[in-house]
Amino acid sequence: MNLPKSLESLIEHFQSLPGIGPKTAERLAFYFLKENKMQAKSFAQALEKVSEDLTLCKECHNVSESELCSVCQDTSRKQNVVCVVENPLNLIAIEKTGYTGLYHVLHGVLNPLKGVGIDDLYIESLLKRVKKLYALHPDLEVILATNPTMEGESTAMYIKRVLRSEDMPNLKITRIGRGLPTGGDMEYADRSTLDNALQGRVEF
Amino acid sequence: MNLPKSLESLIEHFQSLPGIGPKTAERLAFYFLKENKMQAKSFAQALEKVSEDLTLCKECHNVSESELCSVCQDTSRKQNVVCVVENPLNLIAIEKTGYTGLYHVLHGVLNPLKGVGIDDLYIESLLKRVKKLYALHPDLEVILATNPTMEGESTAMYIKRVLRSEDMPNLKITRIGRGLPTGGDMEYADRSTLDNALQGRVEF
Repeated sequence: MNLPKSLESLIEHFQSLPGIGPKTAERLAFYFLKENKMQAKSFAQALEKVSEDLTLCKECHNVSESELCSVCQDTSRKQNVVCVVENPLNLIAIEKTGYTGLYHVLHGVLNPLKGVGIDDLYIESLLKRVKKLYALHPDLEVILATNPTMEGESTAMYIKRVLRSEDMPNLKITRIGRGLPTGGDMEYADRSTLDNALQGRVEF
Repeated sequence: MNLPKSLESLIEHFQSLPGIGPKTAERLAFYFLKENKMQAKSFAQALEKVSEDLTLCKECHNVSESELCSVCQDTSRKQNVVCVVENPLNLIAIEKTGYTGLYHVLHGVLNPLKGVGIDDLYIESLLKRVKKLYALHPDLEVILATNPTMEGESTAMYIKRVLRSEDMPNLKITRIGRGLPTGGDMEYADRSTLDNALQGRVEF
C-alpha cells in the first residue's frame, strides 16, 4: 500500500525541517488526521501569515511585521548600546535578561567552510549604523554577543577590527563574559571554559 | 521586545505538536524566516491539502483519499486474513513486511485512565466486518496486532472475547508473536520478553 499523496507530501515537508527525522515526520503528519483536522487548517494559516507578514527590520535586521522592529521603534530604550547577535533567537535570549539597549542581528557567523563570507552577514550595515550612532552618542558601546564558538569568536574579532579601523576613538567595544555557566560544576568544565573563568575573574 | 504576533502564533502551533518542546518550536518557526519563505507557503499548502483531501476508509478506517483505501480497493489481496492494528502508522510498518491480507485500524487502544473506552475505537465495525467476511471465507483469520503494551494486550484480549462470543466456530484468532527482537541481546532483555520468547518457541 502507498500512502495517500497529500500525506506523503506533508511527511516530506516535516522531514525537511531541521532536526526532524523520518519517523518523527511520520508521527507529526499523522497527528493531523482524524480529530486534528481543524488544527491543520489553522496551522496552515499560521505558516502562510508568517510567510506573508514577516520581514526583517531595515535598521537592525531583527524579525518584524513593519519596516522597523519593536525594539528600534521604542525610543525609550538606551540608544548608546548596540548588542550584536547572530540571529533573532539569540536576541530573544538576551532580551529576557532585561537588557534595554539596541540590537544588530548578523543572521549568521563567518564560516568559510560553509561558504558564509563577510557579504552574507549584515556587517556592512552594522558599520554604517555604528558610525551614525557614534555621531549622536560619543559614549557608544558595541557589545559583541556572538556565540562562544570558533565561528562566533572569529566573527567578533573581525567586527572589532572593522570598527577599530574607523575613526571612532571613544567607541567602546566589549565582548560578552566567558566563564562557568550558572549551576555548572567546575569538575565537569572543559579546560577552555576554566581558562576563560580565570581570565575573566572580577573583584569580589 | 515581543515577538511579532504571526511568529508567536506559528511557534505555538509547533509547540502543540506531540514531542515538540518550546525550544524546538522556536527553532522550527524561525527556520521559515529569511530564505525559507517559499517553503512556508508550500508547507501551508501541504497541510491544507491533508486537512481537505484525507479521510478514513469506510471499510477498514485506514487513511485514504477516497471512500475505500488502496488496500480495500485491491481485490488481489488475500480476503481471508484481517490484521487488526492500533493506528495507520502500525499498518504501514506491517505493510513493509510484505503482508498481503486486509487490515482493520482501531485508531487507539482501550485505556480507561485516559478515558478511551470501547465506543471510542472501531471495534463495533470490526465485529460487523468479521461476520461479513466469515460468511464468505470460513477459513478467516483475524491477526490481533496491537502493540505489546498493557493497553495493547488488554485491547487484543477484549476483541478476542467479543469475536468468540459470536457464532463463528472456525474463526482463527491469532496474536502477533512475542519474544526477542532481531538484533537483540538476551543479556539485556527484560524478564517478560524472555518469558514470551520461551513460551513462543517454535520447532527448529
